Amino acid sequence: MTARKVKAAVLGGDRRALARAITLVESTRPADREKAESLLTELLPRAGKAMRLGISGAPGAGKSTFIEAFGQHLTGQGKSVAVLAVDPSSRRSGGSILGDKTRMEKLARDPRAFIRPSPAGTTPGGVARRTREALLLVEAAGFDVVLVETVGVGQSEMAVADMVDLFVLLVSPGGGDDLQGIKRGVMELADLILVTKSDGDLLKAANRAASDYQAALHLMRPKYPQVPPQVLQVSSVEGSGIAQAWRAMVTLHATLAKVGHLKRLRADQALRWFWGEVQAALGEELTQNKTLGEEARKLEAAILAGKVLPFAAARSLFRRIIAA
Amino acid sequence: MTARKVKAAVLGGDRRALARAITLVESTRPADREKAESLLTELLPRAGKAMRLGISGAPGAGKSTFIEAFGQHLTGQGKSVAVLAVDPSSRRSGGSILGDKTRMEKLARDPRAFIRPSPAGTTPGGVARRTREALLLVEAAGFDVVLVETVGVGQSEMAVADMVDLFVLLVSPGGGDDLQGIKRGVMELADLILVTKSDGDLLKAANRAASDYQAALHLMRPKYPQVPPQVLQVSSVEGSGIAQAWRAMVTLHATLAKVGHLKRLRADQALRWFWGEVQAALGEELTQNKTLGEEARKLEAAILAGKVLPFAAARSLFRRIIAA
Repeated sequence: MTARKVKAAVLGGDRRALARAITLVESTRPADREKAESLLTELLPRAGKAMRLGISGAPGAGKSTFIEAFGQHLTGQGKSVAVLAVDPSSRRSGGSILGDKTRMEKLARDPRAFIRPSPAGTTPGGVARRTREALLLVEAAGFDVVLVETVGVGQSEMAVADMVDLFVLLVSPGGGDDLQGIKRGVMELADLILVTKSDGDLLKAANRAASDYQAALHLMRPKYPQVPPQVLQVSSVEGSGIAQAWRAMVTLHATLAKVGHLKRLRADQALRWFWGEVQAALGEELTQNKTLGEEARKLEAAILAGKVLPFAAARSLFRRIIAA
Repeated sequence: MTARKVKAAVLGGDRRALARAITLVESTRPADREKAESLLTELLPRAGKAMRLGISGAPGAGKSTFIEAFGQHLTGQGKSVAVLAVDPSSRRSGGSILGDKTRMEKLARDPRAFIRPSPAGTTPGGVARRTREALLLVEAAGFDVVLVETVGVGQSEMAVADMVDLFVLLVSPGGGDDLQGIKRGVMELADLILVTKSDGDLLKAANRAASDYQAALHLMRPKYPQVPPQVLQVSSVEGSGIAQAWRAMVTLHATLAKVGHLKRLRADQALRWFWGEVQAALGEELTQNKTLGEEARKLEAAILAGKVLPFAAARSLFRRIIAA
């Protein structure tokens, strides 16, 4: 397909073309990279129109079950939904458990839904970049809502929080995989906390958990003044709380849009993406240039041995990078 | 004074020489910078032997009062204590409220204590760097305990957490300046939370606050497995809880040292300092090179206008930096 035809197909809602475009964007081959960037730059003006939601939670919190129920609620309301994922542990052959269509069978068959597993990647930064670019593509393809799922490996929650409008944290009623507690730094990313499995035997525990998280959030300064993060309860199995969760997201999104926070957030995210890539380019240079890489390692060793001042070492390395 | 004499004086515990050395390190003049780095590199082998404690809390939490009482408890036990500060809003003429000797009069007069206000600085990174270097100097001068105080402007808590062994968060019993809640990201940096003003009329509120923070921490994964962060109560005015707080810090510090966590932490911090300085050098290059700075601003504007892909813009800028 010519570039023009691919662009037209994606814009026209052709799912196969979209999937192939995302595959192109995930490719590391330089020739593919050139085509991908050309396509992305052409489609950039059509991006930005979806509601971007991050969905995070520990294994066992019920993400897939929730996304299926939530996604079907949205398509039932006539909205189109794309589901992407960030999972730096994903491997090409093994695949990721995230965005796994077998765990969201009904949604995978829904004509208004599009599910894409996490890209594989050698670096977490690479995975995040590919997902951000896939997000631009699904927006250009006209999806109303984009969900970006993350299971919380490494810094993936931070990466996802930095590419979505609202960050939703799913937590179990307690016990099970959540015994460790929420990873540090994640609770405070949340605009909304959903206590899952709020049904049957777990209902009492879920009520208590909701109250605990509400109390914890109350101790922290909210992201947005006068907009405290909410804690709601859902049961994906019974279908309860899903509509309320959606309404809470819509209301919050509209509030942020109205007072200009959303625009500012997206602008900040775009600039952070840019500067993050500049730093990644620096890291890439050190990986590809064997001499520089060796110099960096020697300096690290000297710093750890207490022989050289980090500031002086950094200036020395940077001058060599510039001179290279 | 010759460089050799300065080094000998600092190592010998000469406070005036130490203060002058820190002033030298804070200077931005290139000639001073050269002397400072030479001195620091000479003294590096003598650094690393103190217990490094970060002390943070919102205005009104009682930091100065606590540091004075705590500092005197330590000197009363025969320990020497240095107090440094990180306050990016500090100005040369106005001075910072942190490390302000007038607020810690008794400690300022204590022969075993050394108090230094925050360096002024144009960038938070610059302030953090100077404080890290001052920390090396006070360690070389033989201080047993170094306290680094921060009031929580910008990212200063993160900067301080990255240069200390233990991070102590002070919170008020509630009401007053703490109404806003703890800044996002800070609660989870804490190894120990101290509820201050646990006396008189505020005792009941302090008990409740301690219980609330304990519950909140319980929901989060601790920094170190099997070492949950503690919440204790202190009254600097009555002097209660100070000894217990110190014992808790000593015990935790010893535990971390024993299982190798402390060594790993300091190694990670040193490397992060190094790579942070490499990135700062990149930023410095863009500030000093007018053409590159202009290019960076144009690319930022193009990204915000949705005209260029952040990844492509970054690669373009980086290539120009390398070629410069």
